[in-house]
Amino acid sequence: MAAKPDQPKPDPSTEHDYDADPAFALHRGGKLEVRSTVPVRDRDDLSLAYTPGVARVCTAIAEDPDLVNDYTWVSNVVAVVTDGTAVLGLGDIGPAAAMPVMEGKALLFKQFGGVDSVPICLDCTDADDLVETVIRLAPSFGGINLEDISAPRCFEVEDRLRAALDIPVFHDDQHGTAIVVLAALRNAARLTGKPLAKMRAVVAGAGASGVAVSRILLEAGIGDIAVSDSKGLIFDGRDGLNPIKQMLARDTNRAGLKGSTEDALVDADVFIGLSGGTIREDCVDAMADDAIVFALSNPDPEIQPEVARRHARVVATGRSDFPNQINNVLAFPGVFRGALDVRAHTITEGMKLAAATALADVVGDEVSEDYVIPSPFDERVAPAVTKAVAAQAREEGVARR
Amino acid sequence: MAAKPDQPKPDPSTEHDYDADPAFALHRGGKLEVRSTVPVRDRDDLSLAYTPGVARVCTAIAEDPDLVNDYTWVSNVVAVVTDGTAVLGLGDIGPAAAMPVMEGKALLFKQFGGVDSVPICLDCTDADDLVETVIRLAPSFGGINLEDISAPRCFEVEDRLRAALDIPVFHDDQHGTAIVVLAALRNAARLTGKPLAKMRAVVAGAGASGVAVSRILLEAGIGDIAVSDSKGLIFDGRDGLNPIKQMLARDTNRAGLKGSTEDALVDADVFIGLSGGTIREDCVDAMADDAIVFALSNPDPEIQPEVARRHARVVATGRSDFPNQINNVLAFPGVFRGALDVRAHTITEGMKLAAATALADVVGDEVSEDYVIPSPFDERVAPAVTKAVAAQAREEGVARR
Repeated sequence: MAAKPDQPKPDPSTEHDYDADPAFALHRGGKLEVRSTVPVRDRDDLSLAYTPGVARVCTAIAEDPDLVNDYTWVSNVVAVVTDGTAVLGLGDIGPAAAMPVMEGKALLFKQFGGVDSVPICLDCTDADDLVETVIRLAPSFGGINLEDISAPRCFEVEDRLRAALDIPVFHDDQHGTAIVVLAALRNAARLTGKPLAKMRAVVAGAGASGVAVSRILLEAGIGDIAVSDSKGLIFDGRDGLNPIKQMLARDTNRAGLKGSTEDALVDADVFIGLSGGTIREDCVDAMADDAIVFALSNPDPEIQPEVARRHARVVATGRSDFPNQINNVLAFPGVFRGALDVRAHTITEGMKLAAATALADVVGDEVSEDYVIPSPFDERVAPAVTKAVAAQAREEGVARR
Repeated sequence: MAAKPDQPKPDPSTEHDYDADPAFALHRGGKLEVRSTVPVRDRDDLSLAYTPGVARVCTAIAEDPDLVNDYTWVSNVVAVVTDGTAVLGLGDIGPAAAMPVMEGKALLFKQFGGVDSVPICLDCTDADDLVETVIRLAPSFGGINLEDISAPRCFEVEDRLRAALDIPVFHDDQHGTAIVVLAALRNAARLTGKPLAKMRAVVAGAGASGVAVSRILLEAGIGDIAVSDSKGLIFDGRDGLNPIKQMLARDTNRAGLKGSTEDALVDADVFIGLSGGTIREDCVDAMADDAIVFALSNPDPEIQPEVARRHARVVATGRSDFPNQINNVLAFPGVFRGALDVRAHTITEGMKLAAATALADVVGDEVSEDYVIPSPFDERVAPAVTKAVAAQAREEGVARR
């Protein structure tokens, strides 16, 4: 409708012309829609899709709850849940400001995995409240993808939801990153001829992704890891460690290194940056031969890749404008697609490891310094991850079909 | 994937062949999908719809929260929220079994109003829990459509959410029905030449729809109403009335009638059945001349329309196979479309009355005994309701644009 003539015109001096930015122009009106997959052309259609026909479907589900997976969209729809406390590198910007990222996630789910998903930005941040709310929402969804929830609450929230629910719960900032890092590292290891079991890695950052990357590398059998947080290296006996970091202290850093990230890099085989900090060139130079540097902070890597490449054999970043982009979209669509296809009631560590192996194998014999991980637009990726995750779920007996 | 050869075949004697029923066949896999409205063809698209471009949009919303309505889908998406306690005529079948109805609602929202909506079937029934959960979900949605929540909790839940939230909250079982009933009654009144203010109505049923219909008729200025529940007519001083029924007792039944629905029908002008009960033919015969009978229980009207027509001038039902179908789909898509278009922060009584008038006016001069309400497939309906609701929102100052 036309604006009322008596409404004041916006003052151009105080108005942003947001849409001059193509990102804003693209976001106008949002990025998602909900559509019907069945026709509603006339009364006959309506009498099947809605009353009275729908009542027979409801009654059948009430008698046999498993039928909800066959006769509703539930088994193909994932809730992308955030509280907006750790959005990209922007931090705690709240649920409304987190929505563009969650919508983006939803479109990636659809584009790459054929998974329907719904952004759910919650107006609560207490772990108890988050857990309670997601449990109440759960009947509407076939899976829960947690997103951009700050550490250490994210660990507790995920653990409690995994225990409470019989559908997949997956914190992408943790496990998506971990899967893609492990895949890239497997190929880098193949290239350098060093087995994972002989490698020592340094992980900078003990937030969601740092913890999950450390865990999956341990599960994959890496030789040793040293993990650092803002106070330096984490070691057994360091004061003030939260329970997650106590776990890290117990399972990592077997040499008991103290000091800084840079100290640990001397003779290390792998650096994985997930901290938003920086690493000096001479520290990369001090690493072992055939060093592997994953400088994953976004948009500013811990060290510029062209600088790191002077001393390291393989360099990866989180950015699309350099080789070897570590991008979660390589993992989460296929992980959920595979889990949903077999109606897995959970996503196990084995399924994550299988996803990483399948993702690494897409690269195959073409592996090179600039190609340790496939492109997000490689159409082989999602089917390969899907197949591996589904097969592993069946292997472990967590599939329901 | 192919079934494992060692999996046992289902025993046909215990298997339902659900898909032999066309309603089940249509429901297989559900009725909804989420789609992207923007392209994701390559890295350039991804860098706008997702990182790094999306971060600029997030930052802008964090600084100016109103921008969430311009640059996300929030201002066009409604949560269709139920706890599954009063689904169709099926009763308390739980959140999973309610999903087919909520999906149906969502496709009607899209088809008739261009409104995106998401079915949210909650695994809690306590009023405090429902209110708390919807408040936590609210940042993700531009409106809340409550659905199939049993009375009297539905009144409290809606009232508390309306007070707590600055987006439209609308319990369709109440207000959708009320709007369509009032529209049909306005046209029936026009046909019979009796003004609403001179009419006496009998409303059978004091659940969600009975209460809301009674309220809107009072607001529209009807002469008097007698409302009955399972214990008979509601009158001032009757024992054991809950607060909602106390309100009805105060505002209706000025003659202080006691007894049954049938007793009140003697010389009544209007009968509105929302109870699931039955009405005898002789009771319709006992009504005033030019009687109006809305026998709205589904699938079995309180009296068969061809029987009622022997004694009543206008007969309406909830069914599509008789004339004058009272169907909520005539109201809710346009009501939300209008409210969302002007970003109304609430849906007022005035907006509901305006919707009813606009809906009645679609019939216009073609009004007849068999045509007091338009068809759900009349393409004039949603635009007319939308326009009236938006204009009334602006008139009352509850629109934000």
